[in-house]
Amino acid sequence: MKVSHIEHLGIAVKSLEEAIPYWENILGLECYNIEEVADQKVKTAFFKVGDVKIELLEATSQDSPVAKFIEKKGQGVHHIAFAVDGIEEALEEVSSKGIELIDKAPRKGAEGLDIAFLHPKSTFGVLTEFCEDKNK
Amino acid sequence: MKVSHIEHLGIAVKSLEEAIPYWENILGLECYNIEEVADQKVKTAFFKVGDVKIELLEATSQDSPVAKFIEKKGQGVHHIAFAVDGIEEALEEVSSKGIELIDKAPRKGAEGLDIAFLHPKSTFGVLTEFCEDKNK
Repeated sequence: MKVSHIEHLGIAVKSLEEAIPYWENILGLECYNIEEVADQKVKTAFFKVGDVKIELLEATSQDSPVAKFIEKKGQGVHHIAFAVDGIEEALEEVSSKGIELIDKAPRKGAEGLDIAFLHPKSTFGVLTEFCEDKNK
Repeated sequence: MKVSHIEHLGIAVKSLEEAIPYWENILGLECYNIEEVADQKVKTAFFKVGDVKIELLEATSQDSPVAKFIEKKGQGVHHIAFAVDGIEEALEEVSSKGIELIDKAPRKGAEGLDIAFLHPKSTFGVLTEFCEDKNK
């Protein structure tokens, strides 16, 4: 198993409405999509910088993982998502090497990707997502 | 001013010796350089995934910014570094738009880059670095 590239960075913000102008007007990037992911209780705004997407995450409920993250650590980088080929095999491989999984099997994330999270306890504090675009 | 791509992600770890095997043996990436940056009181280990470098950061002193970050927030993503052309002009531009700068002028960072940090208070919690490779 090898990751090919960073598919996106998830960044927790309190308010998309307040954060989007920073990314657009200060950094000069364009917000090309806003999407709600009900499963994760977040609303997301997408940017692209080079080959990497930036996914701003606003909690849509107080019990959203993103709301809990902000409460504990403040706004900031929430997770790194690595693109992998064969997400099921990748999860099996890292699990067999002792990595704790949050998602034992992939589920649907934003933009129709298959996604699964590894537990930050196993990844030196970095909440880590594997994702695969099976629509390609 | 527009950022062209993510030059690197800085990730705070307690111990390079403990963290490097995760990045190598679990994610399958190769550590291609280890370097001490005395100015920032860190020892860094470099990986590359796609076009983005990963820079693991271990504090070399208890008063290192990385030691303070870990004390406050735990291990995890410490900063995002964006590549810009004309770092002095970029700093001037974002400052004129109300962004608070940690470094008013660029200084030397790892790998000989000119670097400067923006204050996370102005960037929705994401410690943000601009960098430029003037050796190119």
